[in-house]
Amino acid sequence: MKRNYVIGIDYGTLSGRALLCDVRTGEELASSMLEYPHAVMDEYLADGKTKLPPDYALQHPQDYLDVLAATVPDVLKKASADAADVVGVGIDFTSCTLMPVLEDGTPLCFLDEYKSNPHAYVKLWKHHAAQDKANRLNAIAQARGEKWLTRYGGKISSEWVLPKIWQVLDEAPEIYEKARFIEAADWLVWQLTGRETRNSCTAGYKALWHKRDGYPAKEFFRALDPRLEDVVDQKLSRDILPLGSRAGGVSERAAALTGLAAGTSVAVANVDAHVTVPALGLHRAGQMLAIMGTSTCHVLLSDSEKMVPGMCGVVEDGILPGFYGYEAGQSCVGDHFAWFVENCVPGSYRDEAKARGIGIFRLLNEKAAALRPGESGLVALDWWNGNRSVLVDVDLTGLIAGLTLLTKPEEIYRALIEATAFGTRTIIETFNASGVPIKEFYAAGGIAEKDPLTMQIYSDIINMEIRISGSAQAPALGSAIFGAVAAGSSRGGYDSVAEASNALGRLKDVVYRPIPENAATYDRLFSEYRLLHDYFGRGGSDMMKRLKEIRRSVR
Amino acid sequence: MKRNYVIGIDYGTLSGRALLCDVRTGEELASSMLEYPHAVMDEYLADGKTKLPPDYALQHPQDYLDVLAATVPDVLKKASADAADVVGVGIDFTSCTLMPVLEDGTPLCFLDEYKSNPHAYVKLWKHHAAQDKANRLNAIAQARGEKWLTRYGGKISSEWVLPKIWQVLDEAPEIYEKARFIEAADWLVWQLTGRETRNSCTAGYKALWHKRDGYPAKEFFRALDPRLEDVVDQKLSRDILPLGSRAGGVSERAAALTGLAAGTSVAVANVDAHVTVPALGLHRAGQMLAIMGTSTCHVLLSDSEKMVPGMCGVVEDGILPGFYGYEAGQSCVGDHFAWFVENCVPGSYRDEAKARGIGIFRLLNEKAAALRPGESGLVALDWWNGNRSVLVDVDLTGLIAGLTLLTKPEEIYRALIEATAFGTRTIIETFNASGVPIKEFYAAGGIAEKDPLTMQIYSDIINMEIRISGSAQAPALGSAIFGAVAAGSSRGGYDSVAEASNALGRLKDVVYRPIPENAATYDRLFSEYRLLHDYFGRGGSDMMKRLKEIRRSVR
Repeated sequence: MKRNYVIGIDYGTLSGRALLCDVRTGEELASSMLEYPHAVMDEYLADGKTKLPPDYALQHPQDYLDVLAATVPDVLKKASADAADVVGVGIDFTSCTLMPVLEDGTPLCFLDEYKSNPHAYVKLWKHHAAQDKANRLNAIAQARGEKWLTRYGGKISSEWVLPKIWQVLDEAPEIYEKARFIEAADWLVWQLTGRETRNSCTAGYKALWHKRDGYPAKEFFRALDPRLEDVVDQKLSRDILPLGSRAGGVSERAAALTGLAAGTSVAVANVDAHVTVPALGLHRAGQMLAIMGTSTCHVLLSDSEKMVPGMCGVVEDGILPGFYGYEAGQSCVGDHFAWFVENCVPGSYRDEAKARGIGIFRLLNEKAAALRPGESGLVALDWWNGNRSVLVDVDLTGLIAGLTLLTKPEEIYRALIEATAFGTRTIIETFNASGVPIKEFYAAGGIAEKDPLTMQIYSDIINMEIRISGSAQAPALGSAIFGAVAAGSSRGGYDSVAEASNALGRLKDVVYRPIPENAATYDRLFSEYRLLHDYFGRGGSDMMKRLKEIRRSVR
Repeated sequence: MKRNYVIGIDYGTLSGRALLCDVRTGEELASSMLEYPHAVMDEYLADGKTKLPPDYALQHPQDYLDVLAATVPDVLKKASADAADVVGVGIDFTSCTLMPVLEDGTPLCFLDEYKSNPHAYVKLWKHHAAQDKANRLNAIAQARGEKWLTRYGGKISSEWVLPKIWQVLDEAPEIYEKARFIEAADWLVWQLTGRETRNSCTAGYKALWHKRDGYPAKEFFRALDPRLEDVVDQKLSRDILPLGSRAGGVSERAAALTGLAAGTSVAVANVDAHVTVPALGLHRAGQMLAIMGTSTCHVLLSDSEKMVPGMCGVVEDGILPGFYGYEAGQSCVGDHFAWFVENCVPGSYRDEAKARGIGIFRLLNEKAAALRPGESGLVALDWWNGNRSVLVDVDLTGLIAGLTLLTKPEEIYRALIEATAFGTRTIIETFNASGVPIKEFYAAGGIAEKDPLTMQIYSDIINMEIRISGSAQAPALGSAIFGAVAAGSSRGGYDSVAEASNALGRLKDVVYRPIPENAATYDRLFSEYRLLHDYFGRGGSDMMKRLKEIRRSVR
C-alpha cells in the first residue's frame, strides 16, 4: 500500500527539527534537527562587536531558513520519501518571538544599513528588556478598565507583542518606521507559501486579539503613545486565520529550498506548546497538558470563558476549534534543575557518578528517589526565574527553608522538584477555584519523557493521575497533524483537527498514579508552600523586591 | 637571664593542646596537640557495637589523660625546658562537658560493668538528647517564677548540667545511683592535683550556681523530680573556687604522667571561651570577645547585672574578677561554611582550585571577596543548627532567599558568612538595648585568625572596629595566664589576673575597620535579615517547627 506523509516542523529556543510521519498511522519515519548557528544572542550581536543591554534575547532569522533547508530534505531522504507523497506541512514556534520585516517579508536585519541595530533582529520570547513598557501598559489598561484584560488574568507579560513593539518605537524609531512586525511562526509560513498569513493562536494569546472583538480599541493604543494609535493597521494585521486552516501551497522558491513539491499544503502557524495538545489525542474539556522543559507551559481545554487570576490567557479556538483554550506557565522548571547541577552538586558526587559510569542527573535521581516525602524537612519556592502563573511577577526570587547541617544535595534537589510541582498544583487549584475545573492531567516534553521520579512526585503532589505523550517529539507531531488538516481529505489529509488527532495523536502506556501515603504528606508540605507563596508573593513581605532593589542600587 | 615558664592546656571538641610560654613575656616557646583517639562518639560507643540514639555526643575520658601524657612532656622537650622552671599550669575545656565518676574520681566508663552503657561516658557539650528535660525544666522554672532564670536570659539549654544529669537519672538510674557528676575541666584538675575542686565559671554558667545565692532551692529540684531534691549535695558540690585560685600542686602520680615537677601550681579549671578574654589583654567593661570556630561564643565584660533576652548567662566574676561576665552564642558558624563546602561546591570549582594549587576555601574566599555587598540579592538565616542567642530555639532551621538562575556558589557562600555576621549584630543590638552596652569588639579562634574576608564583612555589618587575638592559641594562652596567677608572685607568677593578662595577653597589629559604603548597604540587608528573623523566629510563622514535625512523622 502506497504511503503518504506529513511533515511537522518544530522551532524551539535553540534548534529546529522536522518530523516526517505516515499520514494514516502517525508512525514517525524520520526526524532531523539543526541547532541555530547564532543560538540566542544575549550579550553580543552576530557581529561579535555590538554589545547588548541587559535582559536582551535576540535571534537571527537566517537560522530559521537554515533549518528549513537542512532538515526537510534530510527527513525526505532518511525516509526515502517522494516529496510528491507529502500531503501537508505544519510549523510551530516559540512565542511571542517577534520580528521586524519589510512589506515583502525581508527581515530588517538582512539589510546592510540595519545589521548592527539590535532592534532589527528577532526578539525571542524570553527577551525581557521591555518590562517597563509592560508595566505602563498594565497600569494604563487597568486605569481605563479595559475589559479584555480579564482574558489575560489581569496582567500582560513583557514577553508579548505590544511591549516589544513599543520598545522598538521608543529606542529605534527608524526601525519602527520602516518595519511591520510578525511572529516568526507566521513569517516562516510566509517563506514557505510566499503569502503572508497570521494565525489565531499567537494573535489571541500574545497580541490581544479576540475572535469576535478583534483588537483593543484605537483609544487604548493612543493612550499608550499617540504614535501607537494605528499600530494594528500599520504594523500588524487584522486578517487572522483559524488554526487548521490552509495558509497556501509551497511556493516554487520554497520548493527549491526544501525539496518539497510546489503546491504542498501548508497549515497556518501555531505555538509550540499549544500545538502539542492534539499530538496526545486530547479533545475533551477539563484536560490540561503540561509541556515540561526548561520552563513549563500549561494548556487547557475548556467549554467556558472565565477570569482565572494569573493565567497567561484564554482564547476561543486558541488551541482546538470548539474549545476555549487556556494557557498558564511556570518560568523555571528544567532550568531550575540545571542551575542546581551546574552550581550546587559537590565534586564528590561527580566522582561517584563517574566511577559508576552514569550521568550526574541519574545519580541525583537515584539518591533523591530513596528519600521519603517530607523526610528532608525542606520546602522551596520555585521562583529562581520569577513567577509566571499565578502571580505574574518577574521580581520574585527563589527560596529554600528548613536547611540543617545534615541536609544533603539530593534533599535540596528533591525539594526543587517538589517546589515546581507545588507551583503546578497552585495553578491547578486556581483554575479549579475559578470555575474552570481540571479533570485530567497530561504531560509532554523532556522531563515527562525521561524523568519518572519527577513525574511520580508531580502525581503525588497534584494528587491526580498523569499520562504522558506517546511521541518524544510531540510539538512536531502536533504540527504534522495541523499540516494534515490543512491538506484536507481531498488532498490525502483530514477534514478536522479532531479526526487527525484521533488518527495520529497517542499516549504512552505508562500512567503515574498518586501514592496515597505520599499524597497525604505532600498535602501538609503544600500548606507550607502556600503560606510562603502568599507571604512573599502576595504582599505579606515585599522582601524579594527590596533585595532586587538593593542589588540594582549597588551594581 | 634564667627563664621561667607557664603551661596552658586547652581541651577542644576533637583534640587537646598544650602551650608552653615564657612567664614574663608570654613568648610562645612550644606547643603540642593530640587528637582524641575516640573523637566524638555519636553513632556507636567505643566498642563499635553499642548503637547510640539520635542527638548523642559522647567522649572517652581516657583521651583526656592521653593528651596530658603526650603533649606536656612534648612541650617541655621541644622548648628544652626544665620542669622545675614551670611555675604553673592552667586547664580549660569545652563546657558543659559532664562526666559521671566514683567518689575517688574514677570515671564510670572505666569500670567493666558499665563500659557498654552510654550513660557511663562523658556527655560532650553538644550532646543534645536531653532537650525534653530542658523543656520541662524551663516550664517548671517559669511556672514557679524562679528568679535565677533571668540570669540565663529566661531559658536554660539542654546542653547544661541539670538536663544531662536528669537524663541519666531517667534512663540509667543505676548509673545515677553510683555516680557523682563533674565537668571534665574540673576532673582534669583533680587528676593533676589529686584533689577535687570545682570552678566558679562552669558552676555559674552551666550549673545555675550564684556567688551569693548558691544553687536554686531544693524545692525547685524536687519539683523537677523528687529524686533530684538533693542532687547538689549528693551529686555535685557547693564548694566552688573562684577563677585564678590555686587548685593545688601537681601530685606525684600526675608528675609521673606528665613530666611536670610535683608541687607545680595548678589553677582551678576554666571554660575554653571565657579563658580567652585575658589572652587578649581585655580588662574593661563593654569589651566583647567572639571566639569564632565551628560555633561562636561571645563573652562580655560588664559592670552591671541586667536581664538580656536570649543570652546564655551572666555570672559575677564568671570571666574576670570584678566584672559581670556575660555569655551569648551562635551554634553554627564554621560548621556552616564546612557544610557548604562539603555539600554545595561544584566539581568545576574543585578543578579550578586544584589547577591553581590552592584550597577550596581560598578559592571561594577569592571569588566571594570580589563581590560587592548586596550584589547577589541574597539573604540567609544562619540557623542550620538552630539558634542559640537570642532566640534559644534548637528547632529553627536555615533559610536562603533571593536565589535566581544567575546565583553563583560564591554568592551563596558570602550570604552564609553575612548571615552569621547578622546573627552577631542581633546579639550586639540585644545587649545594647538591654542596658549592657558593647563598646569594643574583639575576635579570636580559627576564623578570626585566618579569614580576613569574613572579619571585614563582620566589621562592615556590625559597624564596629574589630581587633584580633595576638595568639593563634588564645585559649591555651588564657589557661597559661590563670596558671601563672595560681602560682602567685611568690612562686614566680602573678598575684592577679589583671597583672598576668597585662604581661602575657596581646593583640595582633591588624584592625578591621568598617567601610562606610558597605556598612550602609549592610544596614539595608540587615533590616531584611531582622524581618525574616522575627517572622520565622518569633512566632510570625512556625513553619520551621512544622517542617521538623513532618520530618519526624515520616522518619
